[in-house]
Amino acid sequence: MEQLGTSPLTDAELHGIDAYWRAANYLSVGQIYLLANPLLREPLQPEHIKPRLLGHWGTTPGLNLLYAHLNRVIRQRERDVLFVTGPGHGGPALVANTWLEGSWTAAYPNTTQDEVGMARLFKQFSFPGGIPSHVAADVPGSINEGGELGYSLSHAYGAAADNPDLVVACVVGDGEAETGPLAASWHSNKFLDPARDGAVLPILHLNGYKIANPAVLARIGDEELTALFRGYGYEPYLVAGSEPEAVHQALAATLDQCMQRIDEIQREARSEASPSRPAWPMIVFRTPKGWTGPHTVDGEQVEGTWRAHQVPLSGVRTNPDHLRQLESWLRSYRPEELFDAEGRPVASIVELAPGPQRRMGSSPHANGGEVSRDLELPAVADYAVPVKVPGAEDGEPTKVFGAYLRDAFTLNPENLRLFGPDETESNRLSAVYEVTGKRWLGELRDGDNHLARDGRVLEILSEHTCQGWLEGYLLTGRHGVFSSYEAFVHIVDSMVNQHAKWLKTINRLEWRRRIPSLNYLLTSHVWRQDHNGFSHQDPGFIDHVVNKKAEVVRVYLPPDTNTLLSTMNHCLRTRNYINVVVAGKQPQPNWLDWEDAALHCARGAGIWDFASNDEGDPDVVMACAGDVPTMETLAAVDLLRQHLPELRIRVVNVVDLMRLQDATEHPHGLPDAEFDALFTTDKPVIFAYHGYPWLIHRLTYRRNGHANLHVRGYIEEGTTTTPFDMVVRNNLDRYHLAMDVIDRVPALGTRAASTRQYFADQRQRHHAHVTTYGEDLPEVRDWRWTP
Amino acid sequence: MEQLGTSPLTDAELHGIDAYWRAANYLSVGQIYLLANPLLREPLQPEHIKPRLLGHWGTTPGLNLLYAHLNRVIRQRERDVLFVTGPGHGGPALVANTWLEGSWTAAYPNTTQDEVGMARLFKQFSFPGGIPSHVAADVPGSINEGGELGYSLSHAYGAAADNPDLVVACVVGDGEAETGPLAASWHSNKFLDPARDGAVLPILHLNGYKIANPAVLARIGDEELTALFRGYGYEPYLVAGSEPEAVHQALAATLDQCMQRIDEIQREARSEASPSRPAWPMIVFRTPKGWTGPHTVDGEQVEGTWRAHQVPLSGVRTNPDHLRQLESWLRSYRPEELFDAEGRPVASIVELAPGPQRRMGSSPHANGGEVSRDLELPAVADYAVPVKVPGAEDGEPTKVFGAYLRDAFTLNPENLRLFGPDETESNRLSAVYEVTGKRWLGELRDGDNHLARDGRVLEILSEHTCQGWLEGYLLTGRHGVFSSYEAFVHIVDSMVNQHAKWLKTINRLEWRRRIPSLNYLLTSHVWRQDHNGFSHQDPGFIDHVVNKKAEVVRVYLPPDTNTLLSTMNHCLRTRNYINVVVAGKQPQPNWLDWEDAALHCARGAGIWDFASNDEGDPDVVMACAGDVPTMETLAAVDLLRQHLPELRIRVVNVVDLMRLQDATEHPHGLPDAEFDALFTTDKPVIFAYHGYPWLIHRLTYRRNGHANLHVRGYIEEGTTTTPFDMVVRNNLDRYHLAMDVIDRVPALGTRAASTRQYFADQRQRHHAHVTTYGEDLPEVRDWRWTP
Repeated sequence: MEQLGTSPLTDAELHGIDAYWRAANYLSVGQIYLLANPLLREPLQPEHIKPRLLGHWGTTPGLNLLYAHLNRVIRQRERDVLFVTGPGHGGPALVANTWLEGSWTAAYPNTTQDEVGMARLFKQFSFPGGIPSHVAADVPGSINEGGELGYSLSHAYGAAADNPDLVVACVVGDGEAETGPLAASWHSNKFLDPARDGAVLPILHLNGYKIANPAVLARIGDEELTALFRGYGYEPYLVAGSEPEAVHQALAATLDQCMQRIDEIQREARSEASPSRPAWPMIVFRTPKGWTGPHTVDGEQVEGTWRAHQVPLSGVRTNPDHLRQLESWLRSYRPEELFDAEGRPVASIVELAPGPQRRMGSSPHANGGEVSRDLELPAVADYAVPVKVPGAEDGEPTKVFGAYLRDAFTLNPENLRLFGPDETESNRLSAVYEVTGKRWLGELRDGDNHLARDGRVLEILSEHTCQGWLEGYLLTGRHGVFSSYEAFVHIVDSMVNQHAKWLKTINRLEWRRRIPSLNYLLTSHVWRQDHNGFSHQDPGFIDHVVNKKAEVVRVYLPPDTNTLLSTMNHCLRTRNYINVVVAGKQPQPNWLDWEDAALHCARGAGIWDFASNDEGDPDVVMACAGDVPTMETLAAVDLLRQHLPELRIRVVNVVDLMRLQDATEHPHGLPDAEFDALFTTDKPVIFAYHGYPWLIHRLTYRRNGHANLHVRGYIEEGTTTTPFDMVVRNNLDRYHLAMDVIDRVPALGTRAASTRQYFADQRQRHHAHVTTYGEDLPEVRDWRWTP
Repeated sequence: MEQLGTSPLTDAELHGIDAYWRAANYLSVGQIYLLANPLLREPLQPEHIKPRLLGHWGTTPGLNLLYAHLNRVIRQRERDVLFVTGPGHGGPALVANTWLEGSWTAAYPNTTQDEVGMARLFKQFSFPGGIPSHVAADVPGSINEGGELGYSLSHAYGAAADNPDLVVACVVGDGEAETGPLAASWHSNKFLDPARDGAVLPILHLNGYKIANPAVLARIGDEELTALFRGYGYEPYLVAGSEPEAVHQALAATLDQCMQRIDEIQREARSEASPSRPAWPMIVFRTPKGWTGPHTVDGEQVEGTWRAHQVPLSGVRTNPDHLRQLESWLRSYRPEELFDAEGRPVASIVELAPGPQRRMGSSPHANGGEVSRDLELPAVADYAVPVKVPGAEDGEPTKVFGAYLRDAFTLNPENLRLFGPDETESNRLSAVYEVTGKRWLGELRDGDNHLARDGRVLEILSEHTCQGWLEGYLLTGRHGVFSSYEAFVHIVDSMVNQHAKWLKTINRLEWRRRIPSLNYLLTSHVWRQDHNGFSHQDPGFIDHVVNKKAEVVRVYLPPDTNTLLSTMNHCLRTRNYINVVVAGKQPQPNWLDWEDAALHCARGAGIWDFASNDEGDPDVVMACAGDVPTMETLAAVDLLRQHLPELRIRVVNVVDLMRLQDATEHPHGLPDAEFDALFTTDKPVIFAYHGYPWLIHRLTYRRNGHANLHVRGYIEEGTTTTPFDMVVRNNLDRYHLAMDVIDRVPALGTRAASTRQYFADQRQRHHAHVTTYGEDLPEVRDWRWTP
């Protein structure tokens, strides 16, 4: 990894690009400090300074330099480039650059490109009622907030996917590079098809320090660093220095070289049938932290150290020395050369930015909804399974959905992908392999199955990478499904938080278009981990998601094949949601034919007449949500009908969990009258729920009948065992539910007591059988609903 | 990376180690398949086969080989070695080996080392009432369940820390190697002190395939693979092959070489003052998946492909061909040579295992509580701050705790560490740097601060790595604190799940000793993200944790300095818990002197008399949990006292959140009578809570007065703004709380209406001020409690 020695910039180009950089730096410092006097028309006074100084200077000058140089590349090569900011705390840089190039004003017309607009730009930054300090959705051109570090590179690869003409320049911070998700995502290059996808140009921004420590990759020496990136499959280029002219030349030469390599790789891949995986270029960009800022403050070195991370001069309002130092810092950029008398960027700077079609802050890919097409979806009813008698036959919900998804791929060959950590086959979605493959650009060997360099199924054993790719794909307007083990989707909890926050922010930004929803299909769920046991049993992702803003969150628990079809068909048509769908992959009874399923899903919750005998006046309501709880509930009803035929039971099934919350809390919430009509206000409700039982209480605590609600669910008991033993261990089994009913309907009288004992004995008999023979009793395993 | 050419094993040694390997393989296959006839005394019949075949064969023979060879190393070199199993689904291997060496029987005396015990061993595996399929806590010698992949290597480094004589052999699966946490944790070698820590020997087990796909690292070629590990700072050695004799020799030679390198590195480091960071050895171990299993089943290749991942022969009970194939597979290991007539391992095998002192399944480090010493803790009262008048002065809780922690380091120089992603200084714990440094074995430069190769503060910008190190450290009996941003601790949600499951399992295993608690100090919390904004605001970790088993989870919200001291002092003395402590790092009022604080923390929740005027009969209860909500509550009380002096207010503060849950749900739950005595059963309760408000409802829905409870908390509204604007945006501010009181106490009459309007106006006035001037109004910022 040697630095290139050529100097491609003419003196005029060098002067121009340096002026551009100075302008962006000036605007960045202005945002952090200035409340007024943006052009320094008068000497800086304390009252021109913001009372609270909030922002991150350290990474900003480096980002500004990269942005300026990418502008040159875009103009000269007429390429579409997307800028992904890993160190998202460098918000001032991206705000500055998008204002300079005109994208900011296009999104926010009253922040004009003149002194008034500049003053507004400065004041709003990190200011109450203004914009946040990070590269959030508020910033035009951003698809990566970068507040939580680690996802820039997977976002970049997701954005490049199926965008063959796009180059995604992705700046990775040296702090971010220490995170697990980022460390794994370098391997994304094994999943990028140079023929049909665009290119990603990773730029590791090594400025040496985090908040208070050196960065690991900044202190391992060039030899190990080079080996690391060669090992990750890249061709690394070094740009290092602290002398602006030299760095300008080196960066320009290196970007030219990288763009040329990208062109060559793509040309080759697009002309040959099956090229080998290329070593894509990447850049190690080693410049001082807080470059061009104060070198020394109060006798301590700041530029080039961790002290430059946030605000280098913190006492500006009260310390006259700091104030003077700030003024000379600002003036060091020679603003009078950069902005005209009205505060507009001078013409020589303006012309260095690409035009409205190509400027990075206006990329339609970054504002993903702008380029997004709705999916063409197959006629879902064609995939429905016939259900003449409820529960008479088993279905395989995910297998049937797989057929639907297969045809969706055929109809949408360029904007739909399926993501998963090595589980598509085991989740029984393998029908998709009839029309597409698993993306693979590694070495191929005899016996490999379904691997293809242009496959639309992306599998890597990293939930973080899957999620990051999918987010990048969605944020740039395309569609996808993430299929995962229910327990391990917790691995991306924090990424989900950040995506939910992004969606909430989009909702209040007029100029941002809505993007396709993030769809989870969690199909290896808590109740069926026969091979794996306790570590694979956790239904808490739903709990996590429902803490997010109601306007962006949806949770579905389809109980059978046709309801899963209906649910997924709905989710794939939505935008700006996080849809969580939990459905088993194991054979299980089909309850509803297509017509009933579609209606039931549209309602989200409803009485199942075929299983109810309450004639409008139940003794007890048996509610259920989730496939296994639904089956156990119906088996309990079956038992109760046989043993206590006089008991009037109403069965309520809930597909759309948010129907339970009240209408003031969630847009899907049932009005109280409708809730009461389903659940009654005074009858006992035995609720069999898929996940942690207290979630149902949290959703319904305001409901009239809440005191009558008795919930069974997963109480963190599990191991490698049989399906029925799992529900027994958590008191969610049919016998226990039937006993719960008896306990809650005292009017049943003494006969019920002996029935209750019978149920308890049956449970015990099962326990003895399963621990002796290792399998469920036939009458449990082969149980069928009696119509 | 070349394979070593030497052949260190004599024929007898080779024969012996191969027999050991065959014995372990035989026992592994037996566990997956056999319900009876463990020694194949009669031809295999369907009734000898388990009805449900559950387990993972693919990785097992490789693990068995490594275990056998490490036994040789342990015996020859008299070293203590700990075995960490990354591919934890290879449970059969570790069960087999620990039974062979005697560790299993030592832990489970009725699973004897004979035919009866072997039958029991086989039956119990993945069987209801038996043991799980993974290397869970049930397996002696395990500190890594490996069900969720990604944490083996960070666990290994945590285990090696401060154990200078220990070698931790860590097998990393090639699937696991794709995960983010694992990818980041290779860099742990920059944080291991060869002088005072032990050694980690990573072994990348490249068997080529995951569940249904090739593994990425298996298909990048040796050149990239070598570069990758050199880049990670290791010296990689290759062991590859499918011919047992050759692999035995190569593995023996390589392990000898690696152990020798480890000895050299340690000798050098322990004799020199400041050695450079060494390139530790690591092994790439490339053998076939499902090695020695059926090569072909039903015409398809199994051995050496992904088809060997779980159960290679699945139809054994019904398909006579499969049954025959299984029998010949089992007999291929020549069990008659391995076990005597009583089913005992023959003497020549037994003597290849290390004795009870050194066998890996009996490592006291793996059963961490066995070697664990309690901390010597300083007299906590000495650190308490004087509080003469509640709220009169500000304290900095974490700063004061930092002084206590500093002295704890001095008292415990070998078994206490502090972990964090680059935030110790910003979390104001920097007093610890008076006695120790930040661990750093990278290059040192001028201006570096507090870096030290033997520092006890471990900072890397990877929450996963911090958590993994800490877990490894705790699991081997030592103590630690993890200090993190509250929002980003969600990054380790899934790791917390797994650790909680481990702790729950320990609780039911008699032979496992209890390990020190996992202590979180979340101090950059949702309400004070002045620099960062929305992405850094998420209090949902508490919600996540309370879903875990009540017996292992504790949550504390100390409102000031002395309560934080008391809480942390308590947590550091506990075992087998996950303690979550949330406390701000910003200056804030001190409310309680030491005596009151200690009493309040012991009670967990209590009435604050100094702020109450209810004389046992309140009009309203104002409850609070968390530092910011407590301050806002007291400020609201202050306002109400001034404006509505006749109102009788009771202030209840909750430190131990689990006191809210009822006693049947959580061991800390208050009995109903005590809860009612605090909160009343019929008076309105305005509860100001640190996190998502519905959690309080979820915890209290069974309480008598629940219908009167009105909770304010974080409702997912935030940005970069002032502290008071944050509470205003979430309706948690003093004015809103006071208005809530007025709304809930109708008896206050008409004068209250004008007061309410006054409060609403004040809120509005603040909003106008903050959006204009960017800072809170002085009367809010400088507010003091009026005693």
